Amino acid sequence: MPEISLILVGFGNVGKAFVRLLQRKSDLLRDRYDLTYRITGIATGRHGMVMDPDGLDPQKILEVEDFSTLSRLPQPSSVIDLIQRCPGDFMFENSPVNHETGQPAIDHIRTALQRKMHVVTANKGPVVHGYHELIALAAENGRSFLFESAVMDGAPIFSVFREPLPLTELHGFTGILNSCTNFILGMMDEGKSFEEAVSLAQSIGITETDPSEDIDGWDAAVKAAALVTVLMGVPMKPQQVDRTGIRSITPIMLAEARAAGERWKLVCTAVREGDDVHARVVPQRVRPDSPLFAINGTNSYVQFHTDVLPGLGIIESDPGPETTAYGLLADMINALRAKGMLK
Amino acid sequence: MPEISLILVGFGNVGKAFVRLLQRKSDLLRDRYDLTYRITGIATGRHGMVMDPDGLDPQKILEVEDFSTLSRLPQPSSVIDLIQRCPGDFMFENSPVNHETGQPAIDHIRTALQRKMHVVTANKGPVVHGYHELIALAAENGRSFLFESAVMDGAPIFSVFREPLPLTELHGFTGILNSCTNFILGMMDEGKSFEEAVSLAQSIGITETDPSEDIDGWDAAVKAAALVTVLMGVPMKPQQVDRTGIRSITPIMLAEARAAGERWKLVCTAVREGDDVHARVVPQRVRPDSPLFAINGTNSYVQFHTDVLPGLGIIESDPGPETTAYGLLADMINALRAKGMLK
Repeated sequence: MPEISLILVGFGNVGKAFVRLLQRKSDLLRDRYDLTYRITGIATGRHGMVMDPDGLDPQKILEVEDFSTLSRLPQPSSVIDLIQRCPGDFMFENSPVNHETGQPAIDHIRTALQRKMHVVTANKGPVVHGYHELIALAAENGRSFLFESAVMDGAPIFSVFREPLPLTELHGFTGILNSCTNFILGMMDEGKSFEEAVSLAQSIGITETDPSEDIDGWDAAVKAAALVTVLMGVPMKPQQVDRTGIRSITPIMLAEARAAGERWKLVCTAVREGDDVHARVVPQRVRPDSPLFAINGTNSYVQFHTDVLPGLGIIESDPGPETTAYGLLADMINALRAKGMLK
Repeated sequence: MPEISLILVGFGNVGKAFVRLLQRKSDLLRDRYDLTYRITGIATGRHGMVMDPDGLDPQKILEVEDFSTLSRLPQPSSVIDLIQRCPGDFMFENSPVNHETGQPAIDHIRTALQRKMHVVTANKGPVVHGYHELIALAAENGRSFLFESAVMDGAPIFSVFREPLPLTELHGFTGILNSCTNFILGMMDEGKSFEEAVSLAQSIGITETDPSEDIDGWDAAVKAAALVTVLMGVPMKPQQVDRTGIRSITPIMLAEARAAGERWKLVCTAVREGDDVHARVVPQRVRPDSPLFAINGTNSYVQFHTDVLPGLGIIESDPGPETTAYGLLADMINALRAKGMLK
């Protein structure tokens, strides 16, 4: 029975949901794939670090406040030091997103791939800022670099272009990729002020203390750039996306749309233009006849336009840390499958 | 360079679109997979049969009226005879659907699998009436039996539960799976009579001379039964689906829905109940807040409810023989990949 060792970098809601999901699926992993796992290292920004080649107790890591208290070994001097010294078949990179540089996640991933670990991440930063380098480094080391959860949580977006859609040319896409602004526009449509809507979004954990990353369209732009880079084969940085956030959408504009039976949505589009791709994120009014109209609350949507399927739409409803965690699990399975380690 | 031999059983719009798609993608097949193909046999119900181990001229088979005129060899005595004698790595089964028994497609497929061909089909009949037998027979012979195009044309429905969604439990689904009734209800909503709408559907080729298969909900029931059988693991025949067609939907009912801002749709649902699944096909009123509302014309939709992703919706827009043909091509590639014959 193969046992795999997992290192977790970043251990917030997604990391915790991932450990709970592994526990819930452990019988199935053993019965279907003859696979067991142990968690050998955890590195966090604010809750310390721990490594244990024999495997940490999953229940304890879900309960403890400071990981260094679990340590039987000298503390690593840094996250990189932990990745360099801790035994691991996989490194899960879930540190906070840096849309400007993708760091320090890119350094973490580079180190792990060089140590011949598979790398799985929900972090969009290294996808837009390091994709080509990291994919090449993974190939060189015979390992996988996968990131299904970077866009639309665990909904299959990148993997659908692997097995299910061979020989497809992607011409472009349209979608709603940022939950927070979609939720805020919905709340404002129901009469809440912008400030009230932002507070609500913060209270349910779908935006940060500083919500400008979402509101100014950066999160949507990073996701659009990730889709363009990976699926359309044209490297694109978030800074290259034509980007307008939702600050200019007023209650009057929402009321006018409502009177016309329409809704405001922050819409992402990308269109191939010769060798280039033009991508933008911009608030638009949508009609009930558009699939975008019914994408409400924290749901998200992308419609792909390809040479073989003119329109293929994917909707994700009711996302949460659990759905992001599922994307990490699916990537883990697929990395092992790609190595021929699973049926 | 591996060359594969293809036998086509049934050669209507889908078969022709498939040959054109193979021609269009032949450079890509060669460059990406080092793969070439020849078509060694064609069997049709009304246009004769032909076999040629050296390969038929793709251009000629798109133009000829009677395939027997292309024959340099004695005519096969039957479709089964052709499948038994013609060299082939793949048999593509696209004969007309028989929702009651799945025949004669099941016999064609059985024969081809016994001869160690991969089988790819857009035909729903053998999926609901022969799935377990045919999958077992395929495994026994080390070949694939694939049918992506049987539901929602080439949109990835079955394949998405392979690589992209490992370890998923499917609790149920909701969707609009029959294009014809969806188109008819839309036309009636725009003021056409039922008879006018049916004629229009016939004129654009989305229903048969006898449209009752669609109108009485049989096509939708067969598709729902196929999804339940394959994806939920519970064998289900179309006759076991609670089925109501659209004959009872009157202009008055449509007008009442319209006045309330709603639309009538023929909705398929399946829900797991213990070890069983309850599936039904029934006209329902849907509101603009439902993703079903914007599924108009010949578009189709399914939303899956799973233990790991609460809602995963897939929309197919603007289908046609080309999109069905793409599903056949994707299955062909995936059968070869499963045998380790492609990268």
